[in-house]
Amino acid sequence: MKVLVVGANGQIGKHLVSMIQASENLEAKAMIRKPEQASFFENVGAETVVVDLEDDTTPILKAVKGADAVVFTAGSGPHTGKDKTLLIDLDGAVKTIKATEIANVKRFIMISSFDTTRKAIQAASSSFAPYVVAKHYADEKLRDTNLDYTIIHPGRLTNDKGIGKVTAASTVERDTIPREDVASVILACL
Amino acid sequence: MKVLVVGANGQIGKHLVSMIQASENLEAKAMIRKPEQASFFENVGAETVVVDLEDDTTPILKAVKGADAVVFTAGSGPHTGKDKTLLIDLDGAVKTIKATEIANVKRFIMISSFDTTRKAIQAASSSFAPYVVAKHYADEKLRDTNLDYTIIHPGRLTNDKGIGKVTAASTVERDTIPREDVASVILACL
Repeated sequence: MKVLVVGANGQIGKHLVSMIQASENLEAKAMIRKPEQASFFENVGAETVVVDLEDDTTPILKAVKGADAVVFTAGSGPHTGKDKTLLIDLDGAVKTIKATEIANVKRFIMISSFDTTRKAIQAASSSFAPYVVAKHYADEKLRDTNLDYTIIHPGRLTNDKGIGKVTAASTVERDTIPREDVASVILACL
Repeated sequence: MKVLVVGANGQIGKHLVSMIQASENLEAKAMIRKPEQASFFENVGAETVVVDLEDDTTPILKAVKGADAVVFTAGSGPHTGKDKTLLIDLDGAVKTIKATEIANVKRFIMISSFDTTRKAIQAASSSFAPYVVAKHYADEKLRDTNLDYTIIHPGRLTNDKGIGKVTAASTVERDTIPREDVASVILACL
């Protein structure tokens, strides 16, 4: 089973690609933005494809084709402007969802934010709210598809070593979670 | 017929409320963000309601109730950050659309951007693209409703005096248009 990891060069993405490559039945195709990001993935034997999520759907569609599942773990990150929140976290996600539908790939895993409900938007600080809005609409777009999707809402992400145990349920108290454990959860969903 | 003008204190909004008040059969309810914006509207005899579009749907719903039509002409403007593009142009619009549905008001007029297609997003400059993305998703949300809606895609807006003539069609060459003439078009749609 081939898994396209969108946002492979992110912190969750790198864990995930490594885990996929270490697994028996899965192989990763790492979607990255810049060619110079390829070496990490080549070192774990993963295929790479260079696509900028700000491009139109065509190169994304090419990347999706031939995959059996798509994981969206791309994010503009906290250090870019809110323009990138609109262009990557919302529009990049929706373009990836659309490309997945067009390519007739059924399985889609979205790494969302902890809570993207209307209530969470209103409760968020003014600096965080735009991000929650972007993730809210991206999640909603995914729910409106016929894809076989899973939306993962992790708690506060840390770079601690994964402990291999998570509390997963439709609603949980917010807690921290190592990115490595988020990658384990994604792997278990595949 | 009572028309709720969302974004009444904007440049199109002020023209529109004045025109509505000068018309025979219409009356405006000006939705504004700050109480100190009320005097302009009181001077033309219009009702005012103070609502912040960043609030949740409840106060917006209260404002919509009792109206026969809703005009969304709010915009975060070019001088605010892209956070406001997400919170006002996208999320504020969608909350207004939802409130209109809940209030069982049928008529909705959206003042959009000249071109909010996928092609326009990709063709836009990096500074303009986030705005087009926000308007794209807001327009799409409106199209997904059962409201009796009109989406107006004006050309480049100017503050010139209106000439009372516009070229309107499903697609036109991009040209300039005085904001006063956009207000006339909205009035004609009511």
